Amino acid sequence: MPTLPLSVIWQDSAVHLLDQTRLPHEESVIVCRDIETVFEAIQTLRVRGAPAIGIAAAYGLILGLSGSVSLDSLEKRGSYLVSARPTAVNLAWSVNRVMQVARKQREGMVSIEVLEREAILIHQEDIAACQAIGRLGLPLVAEHPNLLTHCNAGALAVSELGTALAPVYLANERGHRIHVFVDETRPLLQGARLTAYELTRQGVPNTLISDNMAAHVMSLGRVDAVIVGADRVAINGDVANKIGTLNLAILCRHFEIPFYVACPLSTVDPSTVQGKDIEIEQRSAQEVTHIMKQQISASGLQVYNPAFDVTPASLVSAIVTDKDIVYQPTEAKMKQLLSL
Amino acid sequence: MPTLPLSVIWQDSAVHLLDQTRLPHEESVIVCRDIETVFEAIQTLRVRGAPAIGIAAAYGLILGLSGSVSLDSLEKRGSYLVSARPTAVNLAWSVNRVMQVARKQREGMVSIEVLEREAILIHQEDIAACQAIGRLGLPLVAEHPNLLTHCNAGALAVSELGTALAPVYLANERGHRIHVFVDETRPLLQGARLTAYELTRQGVPNTLISDNMAAHVMSLGRVDAVIVGADRVAINGDVANKIGTLNLAILCRHFEIPFYVACPLSTVDPSTVQGKDIEIEQRSAQEVTHIMKQQISASGLQVYNPAFDVTPASLVSAIVTDKDIVYQPTEAKMKQLLSL
Repeated sequence: MPTLPLSVIWQDSAVHLLDQTRLPHEESVIVCRDIETVFEAIQTLRVRGAPAIGIAAAYGLILGLSGSVSLDSLEKRGSYLVSARPTAVNLAWSVNRVMQVARKQREGMVSIEVLEREAILIHQEDIAACQAIGRLGLPLVAEHPNLLTHCNAGALAVSELGTALAPVYLANERGHRIHVFVDETRPLLQGARLTAYELTRQGVPNTLISDNMAAHVMSLGRVDAVIVGADRVAINGDVANKIGTLNLAILCRHFEIPFYVACPLSTVDPSTVQGKDIEIEQRSAQEVTHIMKQQISASGLQVYNPAFDVTPASLVSAIVTDKDIVYQPTEAKMKQLLSL
Repeated sequence: MPTLPLSVIWQDSAVHLLDQTRLPHEESVIVCRDIETVFEAIQTLRVRGAPAIGIAAAYGLILGLSGSVSLDSLEKRGSYLVSARPTAVNLAWSVNRVMQVARKQREGMVSIEVLEREAILIHQEDIAACQAIGRLGLPLVAEHPNLLTHCNAGALAVSELGTALAPVYLANERGHRIHVFVDETRPLLQGARLTAYELTRQGVPNTLISDNMAAHVMSLGRVDAVIVGADRVAINGDVANKIGTLNLAILCRHFEIPFYVACPLSTVDPSTVQGKDIEIEQRSAQEVTHIMKQQISASGLQVYNPAFDVTPASLVSAIVTDKDIVYQPTEAKMKQLLSL
């Protein structure tokens, strides 16, 4: 069985990044030996997916360093990395986590070895979280082998395995007869470019469709369940995820198909009371009017391009995390999950 | 107020076709003075939309002819035109209707003037049908001025005015504060390329979105009703239309928003008992894997590309035809509409 494409590898004191801007046409790896190369890779989306970015940045912080380094220069390196994509929360979180370790050291000089251990820990925790999501989600996928997914919540977005795709990969490995319909996920086509690519490469039978074909394939009885990732889960169980997710959740309710969300526990934000509190990022009109730099519509059109939507908890059959599965999420259940 | 772009004009014994392959980037008209130019225009989709193709072909049959012509040579011209797009039902229907008039003439020679009258009649009937749909649908649109539409059921697909867009144009002309969300309509992008273009050109406020944003804009309360065209309506009220239509009908039900279908009476097919009987055309994978000749996904993927889907009558709030509006369509009501 082919191995999953890995988004980030730490090897010989270098960060090896699968260049996602060249996917799916070319599978090339960039070896980053200095912080500038990691910065550029994050900024130009060569590495994407919040956890993968965070892992790359944690390593980026110490690239090219050895022995010990001053806290001051580390702080500068950290700020520099975070500025690569100021809105990516995981990037700041990850850099900050390594910096916290640095700040705890008494001397003015910080041991690089200690920081490397923390970066590896962040990486390993992500691997473990994906594996746990995979194991916990496996029975759901085994029971619903004809799946539909949206965007990319696969190996490429994390350290390996994926969140929504983790149980899919495990089920496929164990010989379940899985099939995944892959929404192309306009406007940025993460489904067409990344999910179809990694599923195919890993030998998971899949079929690419346009987003608006989901209702039709469901009406034919060809979908047993939908499984997607999440960008943020409110404490009442409302789920913010890639635009188009709400669409699918409503279709699932109509066709009486389970709608599953898979994400690490860290995606559940206790400070977000409900989905309505989540600000929806508006992105440039050009993402809709152009596809891969080619203009598809008239010039000067009014365009609406929200990056995410919010699916109310009432439409979510279960949230699969690395700790537990929460069926029909409510505020009480989510608080229990977080042990609040 | 700017005039609507006209797909077909009959003037000075020539067919003037708005070249839809150059839209929305360029608004150019091809003047067809011979049958070959019309054939080429139909085949290469310079003219598209079943009614518009039918009208162009009716004129194409007599192009370059005057006085009288032998029935034999006319039959050959008819077969030639129909072969331009063998699957377009309206093309064969329209050519056949003019040929029926020719065949009724007693002499071996057929008067071109009589055929021209029939072609003009086909054209005028289409204009009248669109206007009637517009008038009948106007109160629905006036009551629900924030609309969402899918694909292109506008002026470009017919003689003028459109089917789904006819009431929108009339309402806008009369000063109602209309706004239309335009689904881009993957894979062939008729919404982005054509609907947004013609609405903008006519001064109807509109906003282009990706298909998967429909649920989100509805959840924000920004859509009062959805109005779409139809490719075929079964006698029980089930509606076959561009892929993605079923999606919208289900979302409408969820958000308690009316879902309207607009089409001429001729679209209701008494020989189609129910939607399940309608064969769904499967189109090439390349329409999904490529956009405007550019490959967007990995090579060798499994793709599913149905051109249409079927919306059950139970999800349809009303079918607006040129004869009457059928609310909550049933077989009995549809038969009454057709006076069966």
